Amino acid sequence: MLSGKVVVAQGGGPTAVINQSMVGAVAESRKFRNVDLIYGALHGVRGIIDEDFLDLTQETTNNLEMVAATPSSALGSTRDKPDLKYCHEIFRVLQAHKVAYFFYIGGNDSSDTVRIVSEEAEKAHYPLRCIHIPKTIDNDLVENDHTPGYPSAARFVAQAFMGANLDNWSLPGVYLSVVMGRHSGFLTAASALGKKFPDDGPHLIYLPERVFDIEAFVADVQRVYARYGRCVAAISEGVHDAAGAPIGAPVSKEMERDAHGNVQLSGTGALADLLIEEVRTKLKIKRVRADTLGYLQRSFIGCVSDVDQREAREVGEKAVQYAIWGSKDGSVAIQRTGFYSVDYKLVPLTSVAGKTRTMPDEFISSSGTDVTDAFRLYLRPLLGSGMPDAYRLRSESNQVARILRTAG
Amino acid sequence: MLSGKVVVAQGGGPTAVINQSMVGAVAESRKFRNVDLIYGALHGVRGIIDEDFLDLTQETTNNLEMVAATPSSALGSTRDKPDLKYCHEIFRVLQAHKVAYFFYIGGNDSSDTVRIVSEEAEKAHYPLRCIHIPKTIDNDLVENDHTPGYPSAARFVAQAFMGANLDNWSLPGVYLSVVMGRHSGFLTAASALGKKFPDDGPHLIYLPERVFDIEAFVADVQRVYARYGRCVAAISEGVHDAAGAPIGAPVSKEMERDAHGNVQLSGTGALADLLIEEVRTKLKIKRVRADTLGYLQRSFIGCVSDVDQREAREVGEKAVQYAIWGSKDGSVAIQRTGFYSVDYKLVPLTSVAGKTRTMPDEFISSSGTDVTDAFRLYLRPLLGSGMPDAYRLRSESNQVARILRTAG
Repeated sequence: MLSGKVVVAQGGGPTAVINQSMVGAVAESRKFRNVDLIYGALHGVRGIIDEDFLDLTQETTNNLEMVAATPSSALGSTRDKPDLKYCHEIFRVLQAHKVAYFFYIGGNDSSDTVRIVSEEAEKAHYPLRCIHIPKTIDNDLVENDHTPGYPSAARFVAQAFMGANLDNWSLPGVYLSVVMGRHSGFLTAASALGKKFPDDGPHLIYLPERVFDIEAFVADVQRVYARYGRCVAAISEGVHDAAGAPIGAPVSKEMERDAHGNVQLSGTGALADLLIEEVRTKLKIKRVRADTLGYLQRSFIGCVSDVDQREAREVGEKAVQYAIWGSKDGSVAIQRTGFYSVDYKLVPLTSVAGKTRTMPDEFISSSGTDVTDAFRLYLRPLLGSGMPDAYRLRSESNQVARILRTAG
Repeated sequence: MLSGKVVVAQGGGPTAVINQSMVGAVAESRKFRNVDLIYGALHGVRGIIDEDFLDLTQETTNNLEMVAATPSSALGSTRDKPDLKYCHEIFRVLQAHKVAYFFYIGGNDSSDTVRIVSEEAEKAHYPLRCIHIPKTIDNDLVENDHTPGYPSAARFVAQAFMGANLDNWSLPGVYLSVVMGRHSGFLTAASALGKKFPDDGPHLIYLPERVFDIEAFVADVQRVYARYGRCVAAISEGVHDAAGAPIGAPVSKEMERDAHGNVQLSGTGALADLLIEEVRTKLKIKRVRADTLGYLQRSFIGCVSDVDQREAREVGEKAVQYAIWGSKDGSVAIQRTGFYSVDYKLVPLTSVAGKTRTMPDEFISSSGTDVTDAFRLYLRPLLGSGMPDAYRLRSESNQVARILRTAG
């Protein structure tokens, strides 16, 4: 059992429950006598490099609990994707501060950072336990049944479509909504969980796991509109053509690229506006509207899955237990053990780092524009308790006969 | 006390609580022996013209209650703005079905329809009580302290900005978000209720009550960004230049106009994308993101003010009481009587119909880009109970000294 300081940091896009993991790690670390002090690095690994630390040993338990229930990254985050030199610098700072335990909460990029730092420490024969704590609304980490952050974002998306479907029923037309997720369609697929009645939308769901063809899309919308007199479609921001080129990208004037060279997809309504233009022009449907769910998906306060909260808390707590009792490096992974129960295990950093999980085929309908019952069964327990429900007036039995016009 | 049927209908944009008003009117009507049957017209006045009625006398009380708690218009809605001929047709159908009471839930257009139908009935010496029940997320009805639907939409906007502010703090940059409201800034102003800590956003709020100047906007963003290293701005979709031309409109290729000749503003990300392009180009800030809150503001399920629910229910109930006990036509209005309490009164249809209320000057700061405490005091009680709250780690006192670098 190593003695020394603990450093906790948060990387990548915030989620509704990432602070649960942070507080889980901090609260558990506080219980160990071999832990001197617990530092929080501000803005992820950037805060380590800059030695921007908060002493969380001096934070009140009450405030930690209130922060845990607050969405977004309370320590701040970063989009930095450290290379070997950057990671060596991280290691040098951790060493200087006599850090024995490093916990990094993030997605697959963050796990790769943890892997490199772990290797740097090993090379230098410096005893440092490095644990990656999973987090991502995209649900794209391998080795995990699902990742903390995804259930709450999925709940937001399901509730958003539940309401949008009612709105579209009330004032019929075509409604498109663009959902986050560059490579994985899990979040877009969650829109299906907003459906209750047989004619409810979303009637069409477009995932990055399938090639997006604009002509086929317009034909799909036309078919649904002919049948229901309305159409609700969920579209992943990551939809792309057969060559892999994103559909939304060509229209943005100044293309911003992230550290990976990826074109910026979120934070713009370009894809939605391109698609409504297609539908309006080709189908001559008057009422065509589009939303881009945007940052609300990951940061909206007051829409959270209690299952997600609990699990996010536990992965933070387990990380400390694996590091201190187990004295091992790795990535904490969530395994589903029943309907619904989970267990945790520590997997090698190399098995998670830099890998991307996408929707398995059995979750996508053969049409390619819907999800399967297997997916519904997978997602439903994650959404947690107290999901709102939509009700309708019963119109079949209560129709009134016309007097002035013949019933048609 | 007239005997005959009741017709209830819903017009204009849906809200989170419009079904409360509908169920309030239906449930109260069921108590009167002089009411034969209660019809719901499908898709507003369009359903009256088409004689598309549901017999709500045969709907179960349980289902009515579940529908009341469901957002959006359960009877369907319409964007039709009836002229005299259309209103005459409405009257003719109501007469043919022996309707004695007509309740129309909607905004100022709907109140104008009720006014004309009321006048048609009077001209024909046909005894018909016509009552307008207020509803609009824009909060733009005169004679009302506020209108049902606004508090829940305002709560959604406040919660959205509360989360977006945390997200922007975590990954600093410029974040713009476009809020609904063509002529009235009440909903955009609600973004200010998401602020808690002194440096919280939205730092800038742009309302249609003030002229929008793009150069001034860019300078405002620059000033805030220089001070906080980040900037969150709330922008009404109705912002316009000194000549009254909407800022967002010129970029949309096919401009859709509604029955009033207004350019379509919602359901597109054009304004947001135009503004981020300005900021990105002129200020050379890398991280610039924009959302358009879109239809979620009025239809999101699971974010509702309980105060709004109660009041929406009561205006529906009061409408029936005014019509049957009072035997008068008019528009039900909400009056604030204390902090916080309300009462209702019936005002003449002519005093509401076709008029638009905007934000009074005492609610807008002298800078023109913020709200006043008077507005905060006005809005806070409307948001209802159980508002989520955001917490932070206390960073001032817990800063750790640097070892490798001098603290800077």
